[in-house]
Amino acid sequence: MSIELEQPNLFEQFDLLIAKEDTFEIREFLNNQNISDVADLINEYPEYEARIIANMAIHRAASVFKILDISQQKDIVKELPSSKTAELLNELPADDRTDFLEELPKAAIRDLIKLLDPEERKITLSLLGYPEDSVGRLMTPDYVYVYAHNTVEEVFTTIRRYARNSETIDVIYVIDETGLLIDDLRIRDVILSTPDKRVDEIIDGRVVSLNVNDDQENAQQVFKMNNRVALPVVDENNILLGIVTIDDMLWVANEEFSEDMQKMGGTEALNEPYLDIPILKLFKKRVSWLVVLFLGEMLTATAMGYFEDEIAKAIVLALFVPLIISSGGNSGSQASTLIIQAMAVGEITIGDWWRVFRRELISGMLLGSVLGIIGFIRVAVWHSIVPAIYGPHWMMIGATVGFSLIGVVLWGTITGSMLPMFLKKLGADPAVSSAPFVATLVDVTGLIIYFSFAYLFLQGLLL
Amino acid sequence: MSIELEQPNLFEQFDLLIAKEDTFEIREFLNNQNISDVADLINEYPEYEARIIANMAIHRAASVFKILDISQQKDIVKELPSSKTAELLNELPADDRTDFLEELPKAAIRDLIKLLDPEERKITLSLLGYPEDSVGRLMTPDYVYVYAHNTVEEVFTTIRRYARNSETIDVIYVIDETGLLIDDLRIRDVILSTPDKRVDEIIDGRVVSLNVNDDQENAQQVFKMNNRVALPVVDENNILLGIVTIDDMLWVANEEFSEDMQKMGGTEALNEPYLDIPILKLFKKRVSWLVVLFLGEMLTATAMGYFEDEIAKAIVLALFVPLIISSGGNSGSQASTLIIQAMAVGEITIGDWWRVFRRELISGMLLGSVLGIIGFIRVAVWHSIVPAIYGPHWMMIGATVGFSLIGVVLWGTITGSMLPMFLKKLGADPAVSSAPFVATLVDVTGLIIYFSFAYLFLQGLLL
Repeated sequence: MSIELEQPNLFEQFDLLIAKEDTFEIREFLNNQNISDVADLINEYPEYEARIIANMAIHRAASVFKILDISQQKDIVKELPSSKTAELLNELPADDRTDFLEELPKAAIRDLIKLLDPEERKITLSLLGYPEDSVGRLMTPDYVYVYAHNTVEEVFTTIRRYARNSETIDVIYVIDETGLLIDDLRIRDVILSTPDKRVDEIIDGRVVSLNVNDDQENAQQVFKMNNRVALPVVDENNILLGIVTIDDMLWVANEEFSEDMQKMGGTEALNEPYLDIPILKLFKKRVSWLVVLFLGEMLTATAMGYFEDEIAKAIVLALFVPLIISSGGNSGSQASTLIIQAMAVGEITIGDWWRVFRRELISGMLLGSVLGIIGFIRVAVWHSIVPAIYGPHWMMIGATVGFSLIGVVLWGTITGSMLPMFLKKLGADPAVSSAPFVATLVDVTGLIIYFSFAYLFLQGLLL
Repeated sequence: MSIELEQPNLFEQFDLLIAKEDTFEIREFLNNQNISDVADLINEYPEYEARIIANMAIHRAASVFKILDISQQKDIVKELPSSKTAELLNELPADDRTDFLEELPKAAIRDLIKLLDPEERKITLSLLGYPEDSVGRLMTPDYVYVYAHNTVEEVFTTIRRYARNSETIDVIYVIDETGLLIDDLRIRDVILSTPDKRVDEIIDGRVVSLNVNDDQENAQQVFKMNNRVALPVVDENNILLGIVTIDDMLWVANEEFSEDMQKMGGTEALNEPYLDIPILKLFKKRVSWLVVLFLGEMLTATAMGYFEDEIAKAIVLALFVPLIISSGGNSGSQASTLIIQAMAVGEITIGDWWRVFRRELISGMLLGSVLGIIGFIRVAVWHSIVPAIYGPHWMMIGATVGFSLIGVVLWGTITGSMLPMFLKKLGADPAVSSAPFVATLVDVTGLIIYFSFAYLFLQGLLL
């Protein structure tokens, strides 16, 4: 993008200004940069972060502040004098302020909220009352509303009066005297109308709204399906409470994906950038799942113990254990990831489980057969090179390996695909059925499948 | 959300209308629904999909068409008479049309492009020239531009003339006579100005633009950092070519996420909804990775073969093989997922490898120690219950298991975290270092670590 080309220059300029220590010039310089460039500056010069924020026009400082990482935000607030913090918090759009406050310890929130204007304080507190991940947390009360009996000319007057304090004026909301949402009105339709037209003549009565308790993930779907840059948020009685803007959805999408991915990798959601999270916290987020998986995996040692005699009689059986169980694990991880992803983007729902089951049954048979055949060939080829390895019963050993592979791959595929749907059905997060979790689950059963086929093919020969 | 409450009613109404077969009433009904509700209808009544599209005002039909799945779009175009298809394609915003055409076989694209107006044809063909995943593929040429010498009044005249055909009028672009991008202008700033002000008096000279060859992923970051509903797209000479709107970014985010997840699960990107992809194609996308992993995993059988004598002497060693290697795999999957995710959202870059390495070294030591201690306790407890299991050398067996766990977990953590960064450095997609891939890689080395510790602790005792 074009701004990247300018960056070296930007940093050089800043270096010069810092060397000069001319506060006025620094202010001038900062107020003439793009918001994103200033954010880059802060990333490059963390030691000046508070000074950079303090030396900008307050509305621009707020725009920069809201796109910084939470850890940077915390650092800046710590360094700023509290009068400046108050100015900054007051200037932040209500939704971004809520996001920031939410990340702070309760006591710090109390202290900071005291810094707000009474008006801003009320807004922030009410926003903090909605459950996390609800639309209520994203909404801003800064929007323009008009009444159905207003004329287009009156609408323009309202816009001129309130536009400075609104997050968007691309969409204007039409309400009645009780605050009931009647319709939304795009600015384009206002501009295209004559000044004497009444609002109720140009509205079309089609409005899509979000409920304040809706899930943010849900809101994202609604935005994707409706060509709007902002959507109104209402309560159960259809009273307009605020609006949500589409740019917040990009952040929601990112956060959601990060959490899903982290869970699928077998760890708790970090909720902090990887490099910022203290190492002991990182350890805590990771260790619990690893221990759970380890305890589960201990069953493999128990299972192997049951087959100790068989292994003693035919050491050759032990050689293929890692190959067999990992194939089950890999096919299970593959299936579970596919299904979790498809559920996350809404391609499949629990109701589709039977269709998914049939597809995975066929896929599992096909995949298992391919690996089974390769496994058999492996035994046959090694036998033809060094006949001593597997001895006279190489063909039965090959059959054991081949059929076990079909069995474990099929089992892995079915388990991996059904488990996320089952978890969702129970109301749990399907992303918990991570690749490591499925692999662990399949390992133990894989051993049983393997040794069962060994009995079948090798009893009376090696066993 | 509120629209869900109305849905049963919607379907009932549609059932009644279909039963009546009154085309006029159906038209009337369809033209009075929300776009997203009509899309729901099509999902519910796939048998009527082409009829629903054919019976709507064409600009509304286009709005519905563009939010349908590609498979539905294909079905509809197959069923529609070609005159209607032409109307529909002409009505689609250029970027959505390109998206749709891109999914079709080349010959079908040729036939469909013939249906376009000469003007639309030119736009579509030029859009199709940009590499997939580039900003060029997302841009639409339907925007409003003005010149710096225009007055606010003239801007309003321009808006009134072109607004109907624009994707957005929330942002207006200021260019010079050669088409060079000078600035962007928010509609709010136009409305807040007096009619006689000139454009060059109200612009601030701060414009963030995307290059037509930029990656879409990159564009998404720029949108996140800049409070704009649309961004201008320019070529190397800063000539304005089109605009990209923020709603397209939500789709980009979703697609990217899906592809990353699928790769991380050890499969090729499906590029089609799970339930729509033909089962043989699904099989093909999955089998190649499973076979590669299987061939890699065969090395475990070879490695186990080297240690066959040791296993024969101490069968007990075989019992812990699945536990040891899976612990390495799990910690490796966990680390690789964390790093891939952090790189995907831009939290870490290749330059951070040394910081990541140190963090993972410490994490790996801590995680390995926890599992190692649990592993040793497991051996000690079993020994105290049934002393015959591990015999007199139980403590050395416990030490072998414990130290091996520290070794494989540390190794898994380091491999899992460094591999994605290494792949990125090579220009490959880090998501390829999926959980199964890392697990397979760690399995073979895990065996070597395990048997090395066995030599160390058990030589002269059991070995």
